[in-house]
Amino acid sequence: MTDELKSSRTELNRLPVRGHYDFETVAAILDEAYVCHVGFVTNGQPYVIPTIYGREGQLLYLHGAAAGRLLTAEATAICVTVTLVDGLVLARSGFHSSMNYRSVVMLGSAELVDPGRKEQAMKVISDHVLAGRWEDLRPANQMELDQTSVLQMDIVEASAKVRSGPPQDDEEDYALPIWAGTVDFQSPAALARPDGRVHSDAVLPEYVKNYRRS
Amino acid sequence: MTDELKSSRTELNRLPVRGHYDFETVAAILDEAYVCHVGFVTNGQPYVIPTIYGREGQLLYLHGAAAGRLLTAEATAICVTVTLVDGLVLARSGFHSSMNYRSVVMLGSAELVDPGRKEQAMKVISDHVLAGRWEDLRPANQMELDQTSVLQMDIVEASAKVRSGPPQDDEEDYALPIWAGTVDFQSPAALARPDGRVHSDAVLPEYVKNYRRS
Repeated sequence: MTDELKSSRTELNRLPVRGHYDFETVAAILDEAYVCHVGFVTNGQPYVIPTIYGREGQLLYLHGAAAGRLLTAEATAICVTVTLVDGLVLARSGFHSSMNYRSVVMLGSAELVDPGRKEQAMKVISDHVLAGRWEDLRPANQMELDQTSVLQMDIVEASAKVRSGPPQDDEEDYALPIWAGTVDFQSPAALARPDGRVHSDAVLPEYVKNYRRS
Repeated sequence: MTDELKSSRTELNRLPVRGHYDFETVAAILDEAYVCHVGFVTNGQPYVIPTIYGREGQLLYLHGAAAGRLLTAEATAICVTVTLVDGLVLARSGFHSSMNYRSVVMLGSAELVDPGRKEQAMKVISDHVLAGRWEDLRPANQMELDQTSVLQMDIVEASAKVRSGPPQDDEEDYALPIWAGTVDFQSPAALARPDGRVHSDAVLPEYVKNYRRS
């Protein structure tokens, strides 16, 4: 694994053993999650806004929810963070208690996707959230395309941070009669709920019936 | 419901109908989630770092993971965002497709919790992540307290954003034979996994056996 995404700004100061800077590790986390938190600055004040995203190679597309305030920010410097929470780590002391998680922090600049590429970028985001859905949708019209913003950012400066496995307690604490281990979160069950006006010819799609992340 | 947390900086520009500015709505979201994303600025660059938190009245406590870089930031202005993803909203068009979610964006200043109040703040965070665990832990020693940072922020300027329910399609799209509705996520199942060195007198605690968020 290489460190091609490492910089002085993305290098982990705290618990450096948990840091990864190779594109493969970063991409795997991005591909499993689908909600990110976008940070930007307006009048010196940082804002953090959740939105959905998609990835096409080294390009990250952000859905326009964040675009409003972000595009009025004084600079296009953004930070996009993606976090997967895998479980609780219950050590015998609070100090060694933790979470199991996989997170990615990406630094870069946001720019609007060109109008000519916007629909493709929207498909990338849609496919990322729910593969198969795009093909079933009523196609977008020009008004809808005009009203939707998609941002893009190159993934060139980033770090991943990963913790997994059982707690690591101080040696003497293993003698204490305290239950310790992890609470591992499973992928949440998903319940399909049709709205009240589904057409009688419409069938429940496989991508809904078999919905599962990761 | 009052708008006591509203400001020109937290007021929603986009889809204002989804905005809430009363403390009760904000607090309910904060109390169900336990991971937040903290935004701060260093050298003009925003950073967004995930960490766990707890709430004591109007005071938010942030676990020290974020403290390192944050405390070297040029200003103490931060943004703390909490997001709960409740499901996918599958409309008949991409334009009306969405997510069901509850999120909170809080603006304020971070400061270190006084050493004399640090242990209480750590208990608030621990109780928030897993009520009951704190009492079972081997107590913290002075070295551990010294090495742990806890930040606090007053919750005085914030907004909540909430979407729930089925898609709202354009009237003519209801005639299309496209399945539409929501994919509702359930709370994830949690599997307790003891580490390999649990003392023979230790029993699986009820708060692990019956782990459930919300």
